[in-house]
Amino acid sequence: MADLFWPGAERAGTHFDAPSFLNAMVRTEEAWLRVLGRQADLTGTLTTEDLRDLALGAEAGGNPVLDIAKLVRERSGESIAHRGLTSQDVVDSALMLLAKESTETLRQDLAAAIEALISLVVTHADTPMAARTLTQHAVPTTFGLRAATWLTGLLDATDDVLALTFPVQFGGAAGTLAAAVELGLDPTLSRSKFAGLLGLEPALPWHTTRRSITRIGDAYTATTDALARISNDVLALGRPEVRELSEGTGGGSSTMPHKQNPVLSTLIRRAALTTPQLAAALHAASADQVDERSVGGWHVEWSTLSELVRRTLVATSQAVDLLTGLKVHTERMAETAAASREDLLAEQRTMATIAGHEPTGDYLGAARSICDDVVARAEALLPRLD
Amino acid sequence: MADLFWPGAERAGTHFDAPSFLNAMVRTEEAWLRVLGRQADLTGTLTTEDLRDLALGAEAGGNPVLDIAKLVRERSGESIAHRGLTSQDVVDSALMLLAKESTETLRQDLAAAIEALISLVVTHADTPMAARTLTQHAVPTTFGLRAATWLTGLLDATDDVLALTFPVQFGGAAGTLAAAVELGLDPTLSRSKFAGLLGLEPALPWHTTRRSITRIGDAYTATTDALARISNDVLALGRPEVRELSEGTGGGSSTMPHKQNPVLSTLIRRAALTTPQLAAALHAASADQVDERSVGGWHVEWSTLSELVRRTLVATSQAVDLLTGLKVHTERMAETAAASREDLLAEQRTMATIAGHEPTGDYLGAARSICDDVVARAEALLPRLD
Amino acid sequence: MADLFWPGAERAGTHFDAPSFLNAMVRTEEAWLRVLGRQADLTGTLTTEDLRDLALGAEAGGNPVLDIAKLVRERSGESIAHRGLTSQDVVDSALMLLAKESTETLRQDLAAAIEALISLVVTHADTPMAARTLTQHAVPTTFGLRAATWLTGLLDATDDVLALTFPVQFGGAAGTLAAAVELGLDPTLSRSKFAGLLGLEPALPWHTTRRSITRIGDAYTATTDALARISNDVLALGRPEVRELSEGTGGGSSTMPHKQNPVLSTLIRRAALTTPQLAAALHAASADQVDERSVGGWHVEWSTLSELVRRTLVATSQAVDLLTGLKVHTERMAETAAASREDLLAEQRTMATIAGHEPTGDYLGAARSICDDVVARAEALLPRLD
Amino acid sequence: MADLFWPGAERAGTHFDAPSFLNAMVRTEEAWLRVLGRQADLTGTLTTEDLRDLALGAEAGGNPVLDIAKLVRERSGESIAHRGLTSQDVVDSALMLLAKESTETLRQDLAAAIEALISLVVTHADTPMAARTLTQHAVPTTFGLRAATWLTGLLDATDDVLALTFPVQFGGAAGTLAAAVELGLDPTLSRSKFAGLLGLEPALPWHTTRRSITRIGDAYTATTDALARISNDVLALGRPEVRELSEGTGGGSSTMPHKQNPVLSTLIRRAALTTPQLAAALHAASADQVDERSVGGWHVEWSTLSELVRRTLVATSQAVDLLTGLKVHTERMAETAAASREDLLAEQRTMATIAGHEPTGDYLGAARSICDDVVARAEALLPRLD
Repeated sequence: MADLFWPGAERAGTHFDAPSFLNAMVRTEEAWLRVLGRQADLTGTLTTEDLRDLALGAEAGGNPVLDIAKLVRERSGESIAHRGLTSQDVVDSALMLLAKESTETLRQDLAAAIEALISLVVTHADTPMAARTLTQHAVPTTFGLRAATWLTGLLDATDDVLALTFPVQFGGAAGTLAAAVELGLDPTLSRSKFAGLLGLEPALPWHTTRRSITRIGDAYTATTDALARISNDVLALGRPEVRELSEGTGGGSSTMPHKQNPVLSTLIRRAALTTPQLAAALHAASADQVDERSVGGWHVEWSTLSELVRRTLVATSQAVDLLTGLKVHTERMAETAAASREDLLAEQRTMATIAGHEPTGDYLGAARSICDDVVARAEALLPRLD
Repeated sequence: MADLFWPGAERAGTHFDAPSFLNAMVRTEEAWLRVLGRQADLTGTLTTEDLRDLALGAEAGGNPVLDIAKLVRERSGESIAHRGLTSQDVVDSALMLLAKESTETLRQDLAAAIEALISLVVTHADTPMAARTLTQHAVPTTFGLRAATWLTGLLDATDDVLALTFPVQFGGAAGTLAAAVELGLDPTLSRSKFAGLLGLEPALPWHTTRRSITRIGDAYTATTDALARISNDVLALGRPEVRELSEGTGGGSSTMPHKQNPVLSTLIRRAALTTPQLAAALHAASADQVDERSVGGWHVEWSTLSELVRRTLVATSQAVDLLTGLKVHTERMAETAAASREDLLAEQRTMATIAGHEPTGDYLGAARSICDDVVARAEALLPRLD
Repeated sequence: MADLFWPGAERAGTHFDAPSFLNAMVRTEEAWLRVLGRQADLTGTLTTEDLRDLALGAEAGGNPVLDIAKLVRERSGESIAHRGLTSQDVVDSALMLLAKESTETLRQDLAAAIEALISLVVTHADTPMAARTLTQHAVPTTFGLRAATWLTGLLDATDDVLALTFPVQFGGAAGTLAAAVELGLDPTLSRSKFAGLLGLEPALPWHTTRRSITRIGDAYTATTDALARISNDVLALGRPEVRELSEGTGGGSSTMPHKQNPVLSTLIRRAALTTPQLAAALHAASADQVDERSVGGWHVEWSTLSELVRRTLVATSQAVDLLTGLKVHTERMAETAAASREDLLAEQRTMATIAGHEPTGDYLGAARSICDDVVARAEALLPRLD
Repeated sequence: MADLFWPGAERAGTHFDAPSFLNAMVRTEEAWLRVLGRQADLTGTLTTEDLRDLALGAEAGGNPVLDIAKLVRERSGESIAHRGLTSQDVVDSALMLLAKESTETLRQDLAAAIEALISLVVTHADTPMAARTLTQHAVPTTFGLRAATWLTGLLDATDDVLALTFPVQFGGAAGTLAAAVELGLDPTLSRSKFAGLLGLEPALPWHTTRRSITRIGDAYTATTDALARISNDVLALGRPEVRELSEGTGGGSSTMPHKQNPVLSTLIRRAALTTPQLAAALHAASADQVDERSVGGWHVEWSTLSELVRRTLVATSQAVDLLTGLKVHTERMAETAAASREDLLAEQRTMATIAGHEPTGDYLGAARSICDDVVARAEALLPRLD
């Protein structure tokens, strides 16, 4: 789904777009029909042609499920459809389906980014470079270690992404499951079956306890945090005067023919300037819950989650391209480090004096072993992303 | 443009949707062609059929203007099209066109909301009611005064909306206007003509000084702040045990036939839970500007502004319906105030003792004159919203 | 540390206040001296009397460690003090010490809140009450189930709090450990010893990968989200017209003698209106990292973390008081539920008709078993909070 | 008030610190006593020695005014003190006093920053430099024009700062002024006198309409946005490989003797990473208002405003130092521009071809006249800052 307001949006495919949302709600209604004992197949019952009317109708009840349930009943002939559920059961379970699927894609892209980073770390474990702190030359480092830092950030975020869970929502009108019980269903068995059919986890009702939602926001934001941190370096080290890194394919200008703009880095940073706010909106909505069902706090989540997830998917996919295409100008790194040698080794002279010996070697400390440790951690994690 | 993720979205019409954005960019290119001396009419040159390709192509350069300029040249035969501008001139001017037009709609809806509020204040200037502070009964008030408070909030926001300005962007590649000058144009005259053709204000280049953008964010957010404050009261006073207010038409439930849900209030609050974060993203992007053109800070704005504006338009339109349909249960207000009379007049007894007289009257203080003052302010403001 | 701007602040004790921060930095320097083989005891070397000068001196270098290291050397006579570390090693390790200690307090308060909630759930597992959705009466529930929902929210947050880790920071000037190696230290052994002395976890350098910080922000914010959700209910159900809940001790008014204000709930909500933004600032800072050390992104964290942690501690402590003192007006709950019986059982009639039987029983569905399940989860979690 | 967590905090002096807050509340009580006809002088009645007890006592009622009013009565012997007001009248008026005074300081610092910027623009109006867009060399510009952009950003923010108003809060328990009227006061005259004594503007009650607060947040945030934009350039152009700008006095390192860190720029950026979130918290609080007095939304403001204001004052003061001490390496600018000449003039060649003439001149377009226009705007604004 391309978006003139968000170049690159098509990289997120159909994840969390409106047809997918509708489809996930229909799948939820179908799974529930099966819990109710019907051999329902609702495939094709509601289509994208219904989208506009459903979206238009959603304001009346505050969500689209009233009309969806009505259409499902009419078109499937199953008048019992939706009975035992409430609107929020359908929307929340559908959001979890979408989130689970988008997280599978995210994991694949994270795996690709991690692999690209492992390669950069290994290749450049001995590539000398000036470390910078507060923008100024500090001590010697290697580009491998810099890339290992990028990798560490991404591994930390990946840990959180892997820890996400996607619970089914099954509570009925007010989280008591009274309707389901009235219909003669066993709550525990129904919960398991409902969850199982959808590939979600069984869970007690969480209508007003939204940590499953805010955790997605936090983990996805941690991902864009880590990606932006890479972009920042590509942008800083890609300035013409530094020229230690550059993007594989630069973007053009509408008026300057010579330009090679670091467009991927720019667009990745863009995402990270918005995701913390989106995650904050999810937390604010979570804190706003009241009664058995909230007044606005729930309705905030759908669009916010959609944007947060899609922007993260786009940024991660862009990061894979950025990392696999990244040009590392090792000769330039070496030149700069050599020219700044006096400054870069100032600390070493102090330490050698204290230690009572002559400064010797490249003053790279444990750079190499840190690279090894980070790569080992990454390689241990990769199989979990399959 | 209905949106399954944001019920009610269609109320914002085509404001800040993708076709409008494209159209505004084309109008900007057209105006510039006229500044260049061509009698261009680009109407229909680019259509919604181009949207997908333009959106897909936008990632390469980071924005859609490279392709737009190319298509405009090809289809209009005007090879000089876009010459003298940079991408950001086109995008920013287009955003200002969209913002100006959306603000005109916002002003109309604000006028309608203000009129509905004036009517509530006037009608209920003498309707007794228990004032609540920290949720507990405090002293007597009138529903007219409560509505006057709502009105004050909206008037404050309206002041900010009215103060917005919409400057043209005209800077060329790096804000020097060098290309335009090289083409033989007079900078000042070109700026005026460009702005005039677009109905925008002439302005020095503001590529990296984004207060025109953040002011829109701040004023629109102030609007949803004021609207949510109304919703909060409708929700609190609409609880069955309070029942002093109710929405004209309640929303239904997918499972409970008796429900009359305060859907409009709920959806208005929803907006206000997100707009402060969106405005914060605009500020963060503004603070992130660097060089002659930013790396991400600019690209954040398009989608963020679109959402912030559209959500505000939706909420304001919903507020008009909420206010014009609002049911004020005056008898219930009177009953509650009477039942709580002892408490509500506790402060009066203290004050009367201090003043050395018997407590007399309804203890409404200046409620009536405050209502009058607020209405007078509103009526003075209304003509400016035409 | 009481705070006129944040009533209740003293509940957070000295956690994350300036003397504690200084003390933690000194403890970090002391631990490092021991790694360097000195039997240092820096207790009392720097005191609160140094605080003002250190705070004043911190601007010159951007952080207080330059002056701290200097004073430590002067006063302890250990000229090797701090050698091998960088400022950020000291600040970050100190922040982790503070965070670990504040998290221990948080765990205790969470345990107390959870125990109070278990008691409410158990006591009121059969207390009938009207469930509300979108503020309107929905179906029957029990107050026990409502409290179980509160408890679930807190358990979810507790899971995140328990998952927090507190890594030592040990990287040297640019994360290479070059200075330590130059001084003859073994990186791995030094890291373990340093961490062990501080009670922190050994970790590779994380100067620019800040997930350890943002996770604290996310988990603490999840805590205030869960607490505010409780407050919202106390406030809504404590309105005089509803009167199903009230705070144990209400707050007074400066002018109205009869007032019993729900002050604890109010102050808890206050916290939750700010923590999502503070957590977002930590994420934004994390995404802003660049090079081997950031330009501002790091400096943001200290005050932000201090506020976020302290406000969460205050809110949790207040919640313990709120929950242990909470007055549950069961007779009022029963009256309201009885008066609304027709509405509350509307759904049941529909379901019974579908199921082909007469509606019987209290229509509480699985409320009781859900309460049991939540209590079981809580009791399994409690021992981990010791 | 130095702050170990926020280096440079002392630059904000006593603005919005706890003693000033207490003092402002006492001045408000004193002014009100005079409106009540007493010749009160409360100077010294409450002192910093009372601060701790007042802060500790504030939780009981949710704010410190109950105890302040009590102490004022006891110590002044004026038992009528505070009568006619409510707590929020005192706190809000005090906040406005503090905000007015801090804004006066801000205006002075803005004036100094603007003067420093005018000087940079004028001095360097002809200093050639490479313009950068998306970090890459674009076309020629001058450093004067770059500084003019910085100045424009600050002038825009200054416009907003100058537009701030500081209304007195005078509403009584629920905004009806009933107590004052009961005491025999004329509402309009009392309001004028109260405001006049405090140097604030008369205003209708704004207990739950908080635009006066959020406008301060927006304008101060716009200020840090503009300042960070300057810092970003100093940091980018101060990298050793670029070296076109450097801070007057660099900051040192705790371990690297050669370092000259751009500490002021770093600390200014720090502020701007937090202020958008703080302003968002004020908006969220504003949107959370309900009834005649809010439950948490009000209490959020005090600390949030204090931090937002103080951080902005600190950043502005730091910016004055940054700008007055800024080293502009004009020779380096010239070298870089010369070395990149082919690229920088690529656009010119295209334009000249289109225009049908040879490219001549420095391709600086309207850079000079834009500088002149910005300086003229600044000079027209400066007198308003006195």
